Amino acid sequence: MSNDIRTVVVIGCGVIGMGWAVLFLSQGLKVIITDPAEGAEARFEQYLQDAWPLIAAPEEFDSLSKNYDFVHDVGPRLKEADFVQENGPERVDWKTELFETLDKHTRKGVVIASSSSGLPSSKFVGRCQTDPSRVLIGHPFNPPHLIPLVEVVPHPGTSQTSIQTALGFYRSLGKKPILLRQEIPGFVSNRLQAAINNEAYSLISRGIVSAEDLDAAVTSGPGLRWALTGPIATNALGGGGGPEGFGNRIERLGSAIRGWEEDMLKHRFDWNQESLATLQDQAKKSLQDVDWPNMVAERDAVLLKLLNVKSDAPSMAWIV
Amino acid sequence: MSNDIRTVVVIGCGVIGMGWAVLFLSQGLKVIITDPAEGAEARFEQYLQDAWPLIAAPEEFDSLSKNYDFVHDVGPRLKEADFVQENGPERVDWKTELFETLDKHTRKGVVIASSSSGLPSSKFVGRCQTDPSRVLIGHPFNPPHLIPLVEVVPHPGTSQTSIQTALGFYRSLGKKPILLRQEIPGFVSNRLQAAINNEAYSLISRGIVSAEDLDAAVTSGPGLRWALTGPIATNALGGGGGPEGFGNRIERLGSAIRGWEEDMLKHRFDWNQESLATLQDQAKKSLQDVDWPNMVAERDAVLLKLLNVKSDAPSMAWIV
Repeated sequence: MSNDIRTVVVIGCGVIGMGWAVLFLSQGLKVIITDPAEGAEARFEQYLQDAWPLIAAPEEFDSLSKNYDFVHDVGPRLKEADFVQENGPERVDWKTELFETLDKHTRKGVVIASSSSGLPSSKFVGRCQTDPSRVLIGHPFNPPHLIPLVEVVPHPGTSQTSIQTALGFYRSLGKKPILLRQEIPGFVSNRLQAAINNEAYSLISRGIVSAEDLDAAVTSGPGLRWALTGPIATNALGGGGGPEGFGNRIERLGSAIRGWEEDMLKHRFDWNQESLATLQDQAKKSLQDVDWPNMVAERDAVLLKLLNVKSDAPSMAWIV
Repeated sequence: MSNDIRTVVVIGCGVIGMGWAVLFLSQGLKVIITDPAEGAEARFEQYLQDAWPLIAAPEEFDSLSKNYDFVHDVGPRLKEADFVQENGPERVDWKTELFETLDKHTRKGVVIASSSSGLPSSKFVGRCQTDPSRVLIGHPFNPPHLIPLVEVVPHPGTSQTSIQTALGFYRSLGKKPILLRQEIPGFVSNRLQAAINNEAYSLISRGIVSAEDLDAAVTSGPGLRWALTGPIATNALGGGGGPEGFGNRIERLGSAIRGWEEDMLKHRFDWNQESLATLQDQAKKSLQDVDWPNMVAERDAVLLKLLNVKSDAPSMAWIV
């Protein structure tokens, strides 16, 4: 099915929708976009010009980048869709109504994916009368045209065919989709981030380290490794490598790790007003001298170089 | 003081000690190394040849890399030390005895740093009779010659002068030292890793994702960002950037995050035999087809390129 996807409907063209649309266009797809916000179309035109050179050849700009229609009323165009990517507000009532419409007017078998990071699709398929089994979450990572990760999260009634179509389609775009076998709050990547953030907030608000040093502890340490090998492979390398390396590390360090975890549990960041005030004060202090526009531009440039360097490392292909 | 450091004594020449010694030599320092293990000197010679091209100019190999003495009895050489980096076994009795000797025979004001990741120095300074205030932890990240992070952890009696000397010395080697203001179990980087690992172990052992997809969720998602911006700066960017970005994100997402955290707490990885067996089985399955020697070589190559790319991004200097 993913080979047959030629036209994608993008619902909602904020930061996430714009990123998806640019990616789809750069891959030669036809895109039909809708967003009711004032000025949305002009913003997208500007975004397209800025983002294009990051992910596609400049000489393809004329041939590919114009292959979209920005429409006011998407209803009559839904029949053209081979795939739908929804990026609207995170409101159950709004999404329920929208998905009823999408389900009613798209062709049979067309997958309808939501970029939602907060709402599992079981919450808003209740009024899909034609075929709720083609609805799922395809949660990208910001910005969607640069970061490869897409979390595919089926609801209990999503069909295997729809799951495979979505995985195949995202892969065909050069993305790295992962499959969650079950809906859980925060999905995977937000939970992993919440885990590290909670400990970071705790250490800063307790005065153990400055916010600046906390950030450096990641960017100059484990963060460098997590860009290349995930937690499990990193653990296995720490245990001497090989498929037994993971178990070896657990055996050697397990009791020490459990000791750290106990202490961390005892000192969990508790979100009370005082801790929050200290944390925000420290964060502000650390970030006040940052040259934001230049830093963001450089971050994107370094990120692209990192992705290129990784794609040249064939033995790492399984983890890239 | 850090400018006056010309000779470093390296106690213990396993993986960590070897990494430190290569780094010290590449920076033009004289190194006195001791390790009682059979074959340690030959292993170091080999390591030096393999690691040198990664961090130093080949044409400097002849002039700098030979500037070390591998000695059986370090006692008579301790007077020469301007700095001591200890990398021995993680045993309190062993370190207590060693640090008594180091304190007795090194010159006044010389900082004695331990690479210990598990033992805070308050546990083993008890018999230092000359000056325990120059003892601290200087915990590197493996491999020490490639990863910039060094965690400097004073004990309650460590002097400000010693702290500043250690921070300055590590910085002069191109490292990124961070300062912990207090001894805590696991220091900072191991706690942050334990936080993410616990959630990873839980998600895999519960069958929510495969180990392979869990790793991809990091290496293709947040791991790419953590190599460049730490948790606090990443949060601030997620909140729209600027020094107010961090607070904006907390305000917008705080209650969602607390919901994820509650669910994570409820499902914490509990280290019981059954969960551990499932986890290890899944890890093995994910890692069985990895070409380990090639993957490790490529990982190091990509890591070096990443560090080079980062060092060319001046606006990010504050977080690199």
